[in-house]
Amino acid sequence: MAHLPQVLVFGPPTIFTQFEPQYSHKYHFLNAWASSLPLDQFLHTHNYEPSSIQAILCAGGGTPVTVHVLSVLSSVKLIVTTSAGLDHIDLLECRRRGIQVAGAGSLFSEEVAEMAVGLLIDAMRKISAADRYVRQRVHSGPWDFPLGSKLGGKRVGIVGLGSIGFEVAKRLEAFGCSIFYNSRKEKPFISYPFYSSVVELAANSNALVICCALTEQTRHIINKEVLLALGKEGVMVNIGRGALVDEKELVRCLIEGEIGGAGLDVFENEPHVPEELFGLDNVVLSPHAAALLKSLPLICVTLWQGI
Amino acid sequence: MAHLPQVLVFGPPTIFTQFEPQYSHKYHFLNAWASSLPLDQFLHTHNYEPSSIQAILCAGGGTPVTVHVLSVLSSVKLIVTTSAGLDHIDLLECRRRGIQVAGAGSLFSEEVAEMAVGLLIDAMRKISAADRYVRQRVHSGPWDFPLGSKLGGKRVGIVGLGSIGFEVAKRLEAFGCSIFYNSRKEKPFISYPFYSSVVELAANSNALVICCALTEQTRHIINKEVLLALGKEGVMVNIGRGALVDEKELVRCLIEGEIGGAGLDVFENEPHVPEELFGLDNVVLSPHAAALLKSLPLICVTLWQGI
Repeated sequence: MAHLPQVLVFGPPTIFTQFEPQYSHKYHFLNAWASSLPLDQFLHTHNYEPSSIQAILCAGGGTPVTVHVLSVLSSVKLIVTTSAGLDHIDLLECRRRGIQVAGAGSLFSEEVAEMAVGLLIDAMRKISAADRYVRQRVHSGPWDFPLGSKLGGKRVGIVGLGSIGFEVAKRLEAFGCSIFYNSRKEKPFISYPFYSSVVELAANSNALVICCALTEQTRHIINKEVLLALGKEGVMVNIGRGALVDEKELVRCLIEGEIGGAGLDVFENEPHVPEELFGLDNVVLSPHAAALLKSLPLICVTLWQGI
Repeated sequence: MAHLPQVLVFGPPTIFTQFEPQYSHKYHFLNAWASSLPLDQFLHTHNYEPSSIQAILCAGGGTPVTVHVLSVLSSVKLIVTTSAGLDHIDLLECRRRGIQVAGAGSLFSEEVAEMAVGLLIDAMRKISAADRYVRQRVHSGPWDFPLGSKLGGKRVGIVGLGSIGFEVAKRLEAFGCSIFYNSRKEKPFISYPFYSSVVELAANSNALVICCALTEQTRHIINKEVLLALGKEGVMVNIGRGALVDEKELVRCLIEGEIGGAGLDVFENEPHVPEELFGLDNVVLSPHAAALLKSLPLICVTLWQGI
């Protein structure tokens, strides 16, 4: 092993463990994801030499690659992340150090978009809640599950019309939805009406789908004001990043019925999910799985070959 | 009340109870759905005169309108059902007696189709199972929920390309699926490839969506042979009628992993759902709710005005 390039592996192992065997003869993987120790102690405990580590493999929603992490790993030249978002990586520090960063870009846009639509149908038609209702029934009387709302014909506001947002819009049009959007700026050659204000977009939409990248500008872009504008019948889907939404406000709005429902693939402090949500029927909870699919290990291999 | 036309109301009250108040000054509703007694005893107990009943309001999945029921109700001239399927009504006897039957026709096709797509995404991407996973987690370690399959790019076989089947196909095309179908006969002017054999359709599809009407010809159209042809990775969605599928075989296939998964809105003996399914993560269970929506009472009023 001593002669193999050392690669530190962070973050949820869901994908990594599936393709590790194919590459373990080429790289020496240091599986930090399998340890609960802080990085320094993890390296020390295993007698790993920090300056021998040449690359980091990570994923969105996992351990962030901070300035501190990078300062420990003085020889890192490449970071590969299996996510489209790069918010967990300190890009400024990478630029300063000349560290290359490779992300998934739009590779998973279709996968994430179909999950967004699935969560939206689920939240509106109450599919997960209905499934729970059927499984928990002990009596045999007539079904009296509460009615859901039709998705078709609804006005859907897309926050962040990038490659994922476009794929979401395309699918929702086939359901007869009208599409509106907010983005950093109005896009040329796009016929969907643009709203420069997220609050106005929410006020004029039956549902919001949050697809933008997490940056300092977009942190908590979905705040109390936006949620109240979305209103008691409105549904919100977040497949971007948890911190795009003020989660405390979202939880309150769901508990108090200030919004109609939500479909959440991401959370502010993953893998923590606010426990107040566990008893609610107006929310669908998913463990940051929008891009996690049986077909992904193959795609990751492509990324991986960049190392 | 004595002077009002008498209408016997069968079947799940979910919709009826919402629009009853608007019509109770015009009709005297006899709410058989609220009683567990057989029809004869229900009428006797309430001192209702069977020959005074002029109409029946019913729904798919509720009490069937059999020859026996019709023989008790000698003066019925109209049956209104809120369902598209008429399999719960003895149409031969209605024709013989000159009883008019009004059904929902294609009024709810979009609603049902969006539920079919929702169940398909849910079954493939494991949304309800993921929701259960998140809610039941007690530890705070990394998420390790099993990977689902992408819907996009899959071959979907539609069994019954009527108005619901078309709406399903339209939506799935936007996900990048290829559509194939089986129907009583090949349809002119339809570009989707036609399979005259359901077994061959299943063998060539990644997923089947069952959208046909229940008739003597289609009862158990999805049998053991079809399910085995669909195979270990195949997913089946049923939004038609429970008896279109050999439920005992389906349950066995799901337990033994002979098919990949299922999304079921309907069951053979509703409201009974086979309990063996309650512990499975490869099935999504819905209480015959594909056409049940907040907007439906309004639509039902239209039907209802036929009385």
